[in-house]
Amino acid sequence: MSARVYAARWVVPVATPPIPHGAVAVRGGHITWVGPKDDAPPGERLDLGDAVLIPGLVNTHTHLELTAMRGFLEELDFRPWIVRLTRARQAVLTHDLLLASAKVGIAEGLLAGVTTYADTCESGVALQAMAEMGVRGIMYQEVFGPDPSQCAASVRGLRERLASLRHWESPRVRLGISPHAPYTVSDELFVAAARLAESAGCPMAVHLAESEAESRLVRDAMGVFADGLRARGIAVAPRGDSPVALLDRLGVLGAQPLLIHCVRATAPDIARMAHHDCAVAHCPASNAKLGHGIAPLLDILAAGVRVGIGTDSVAANNRLDILDEARVALLMQRAATRRGDALTAADALALATRGGALALGLGQEVGTLAVGKRADLAVFSLGSPRTTPAFSPEDALVWAAAGREASLVLVDGEARVRDGRLVAPPADAHAALRDAADALATWRDAGGGG
Amino acid sequence: MSARVYAARWVVPVATPPIPHGAVAVRGGHITWVGPKDDAPPGERLDLGDAVLIPGLVNTHTHLELTAMRGFLEELDFRPWIVRLTRARQAVLTHDLLLASAKVGIAEGLLAGVTTYADTCESGVALQAMAEMGVRGIMYQEVFGPDPSQCAASVRGLRERLASLRHWESPRVRLGISPHAPYTVSDELFVAAARLAESAGCPMAVHLAESEAESRLVRDAMGVFADGLRARGIAVAPRGDSPVALLDRLGVLGAQPLLIHCVRATAPDIARMAHHDCAVAHCPASNAKLGHGIAPLLDILAAGVRVGIGTDSVAANNRLDILDEARVALLMQRAATRRGDALTAADALALATRGGALALGLGQEVGTLAVGKRADLAVFSLGSPRTTPAFSPEDALVWAAAGREASLVLVDGEARVRDGRLVAPPADAHAALRDAADALATWRDAGGGG
Repeated sequence: MSARVYAARWVVPVATPPIPHGAVAVRGGHITWVGPKDDAPPGERLDLGDAVLIPGLVNTHTHLELTAMRGFLEELDFRPWIVRLTRARQAVLTHDLLLASAKVGIAEGLLAGVTTYADTCESGVALQAMAEMGVRGIMYQEVFGPDPSQCAASVRGLRERLASLRHWESPRVRLGISPHAPYTVSDELFVAAARLAESAGCPMAVHLAESEAESRLVRDAMGVFADGLRARGIAVAPRGDSPVALLDRLGVLGAQPLLIHCVRATAPDIARMAHHDCAVAHCPASNAKLGHGIAPLLDILAAGVRVGIGTDSVAANNRLDILDEARVALLMQRAATRRGDALTAADALALATRGGALALGLGQEVGTLAVGKRADLAVFSLGSPRTTPAFSPEDALVWAAAGREASLVLVDGEARVRDGRLVAPPADAHAALRDAADALATWRDAGGGG
Repeated sequence: MSARVYAARWVVPVATPPIPHGAVAVRGGHITWVGPKDDAPPGERLDLGDAVLIPGLVNTHTHLELTAMRGFLEELDFRPWIVRLTRARQAVLTHDLLLASAKVGIAEGLLAGVTTYADTCESGVALQAMAEMGVRGIMYQEVFGPDPSQCAASVRGLRERLASLRHWESPRVRLGISPHAPYTVSDELFVAAARLAESAGCPMAVHLAESEAESRLVRDAMGVFADGLRARGIAVAPRGDSPVALLDRLGVLGAQPLLIHCVRATAPDIARMAHHDCAVAHCPASNAKLGHGIAPLLDILAAGVRVGIGTDSVAANNRLDILDEARVALLMQRAATRRGDALTAADALALATRGGALALGLGQEVGTLAVGKRADLAVFSLGSPRTTPAFSPEDALVWAAAGREASLVLVDGEARVRDGRLVAPPADAHAALRDAADALATWRDAGGGG
């Protein structure tokens, strides 16, 4: 098989400086060469013109099965939001609708240049959706159970779910485990899930330190989550100084989970995360939109913690666009720190690619353009008024082009998006999603969710 | 002339509730009917399908002449940023390049659905650019002069510039006056400019309460702006408790200027703005990116102050997209207030349309879809994965579609964007802008700007 050579005005390998008039050669699903296009090896040549070629973007946290809930849950406080989300999913969204949901989410992500997905999934459909849509990723199977007496049943259910999903695994898509969050998972279940993850060789992810309500539950056994648990007859007591301290005390941080959100991470929390080499999924738009605030990203990075950028679900964000999310991360950090030099566009692009890959343990496979890595690439045109002029590729991409569609996206060297369109759109998924939306609206209008 | 009837899945008049399967009739540049499409009057009918039709967006603050500086001034502190900007413009950007710059900026804005521009311009090119590109707007001619002894010369220069520009005015584009900011304008010049604005019947705009450095200059006669002025031999003394208090003391607020930024507005400042019925141009991305922070938008709105959304220049923001800016405004307010219900998407869309029109004194002409108003319309498709599903048009637009191109844009009933493309792209302006960028880079690489 001969190489294909993709040339562009700029190639941004991320771990090394941008290459003006650069090129990337691809053969057998791998990157075989990166450099100035005039020095490129022979091969079928595609000149992408006034464009930037980057590593495929990494969405370090999402819930693809919830794509049918885009815009369904606006202006709710956090607990009513999560309660209504859970009830609506159970009442309305069948397995087929959840699968269609996940596929439309991946379609959206691919069009935005996202090739790797870290998905936290209750139903388990995201693994099939990733496999069938031809993207890379980890699906963390969720497990719930705030009542310690439920622990054994939860673990049994989790084992069964994992066993039933294994056949969808491949070198490109893998299973992980996600005990949901401190307000839905007992200490016993956290420990059991971490043991299962370690014994099964599975990566792990946990929603952590997201809301003030979660912190109050863990620290004081007070607040809306504590009230909700008590109303269900579940005993609630203080569990630690903070959600991160709780997982440290339980030994769960030793499993090096991906910690999702960390809006409320304190200096001691960050030291704990760094000590155990846990990674963080930073979701700035979701954190802002739900009123949680701005995570201490600069402090987390300064401690040497691996960090990727995540969108969270479209029930919290309304979009699955990682370049756009990188821009929001920059704006939030600069606003919060009042420093006009807090993170550069190049820093943000690195978090959206290499950072995400490292956070997910996929740093050997993807995240930068380097010989031997998988050929997951994304190309963005700079030919529109919005990106004229462009002095540096990272500034042009993150500050100006973010939010636009990629023109070309490859996974393992195969085109998933070409000329700004999906090569293989998910059949019937859009129609299914519109049906799901109608069903959700009907459920809501009939008083669903209280 | 028969009416044209534009029908869409949703019509959002802004001042009244969204109309599912709505339509807008247009004749002679005016809106003649708004309602359900089944009740629409006869006329040439265009069915826009799965799309949202809204009033043309209003960019309440920008500097179109600076479009050539998109991405040219990254990661600089505020004073070095403004000094380098000024030097680069003087050294490199000719009249023709500034004009091309303004036209590319308008092209970008039109593609994002922006039909009205409030431009603060030093060179005066923006008025011609708006006239030739067929958009609506006010160009506030800038005037500078921190040394009181310069005041008469500055006013003379301003009068001459205004006289030379009058022939570009029309019912669609108008001249205003902008004494730049407290760190570049003496008290004497503020007063003289306000008098000139009132006698000439011109609207007025001022950059105000943007940076901590500006506040320190006004309050304490200290800080980088104070040092810079003293180094030029200009006496500096405390001028008021705050920039807003300064303009109140000078009587300038009585001219009801558009106050640009107001990041540092205090409660007494907001009371002063409300008392004089001044308007505010809220520029959340620029405020964040330059490290100024998050303006107290909720407090400003609660005081009844008219507020529009502005992008600022692409030297500060890198984009001129008001729907996107509305989303950033939402995210910033929710992050800052830690309230997940602080402003809705409908609120943000109202600021981006009606709010901007009212802030600019154009509320009788544009900003809502209502019979008798000018037919300035923007249409955004909802047909992509990103906007599937869509439960409400405002949520779909602001949260999900923001950052995308409009499919159809009308100004005075005439198409400026059709099928997502400019009907009349500015000839040669893109090439001119690339030349300008090369010249700017050469100047910088030769040590320009110090």
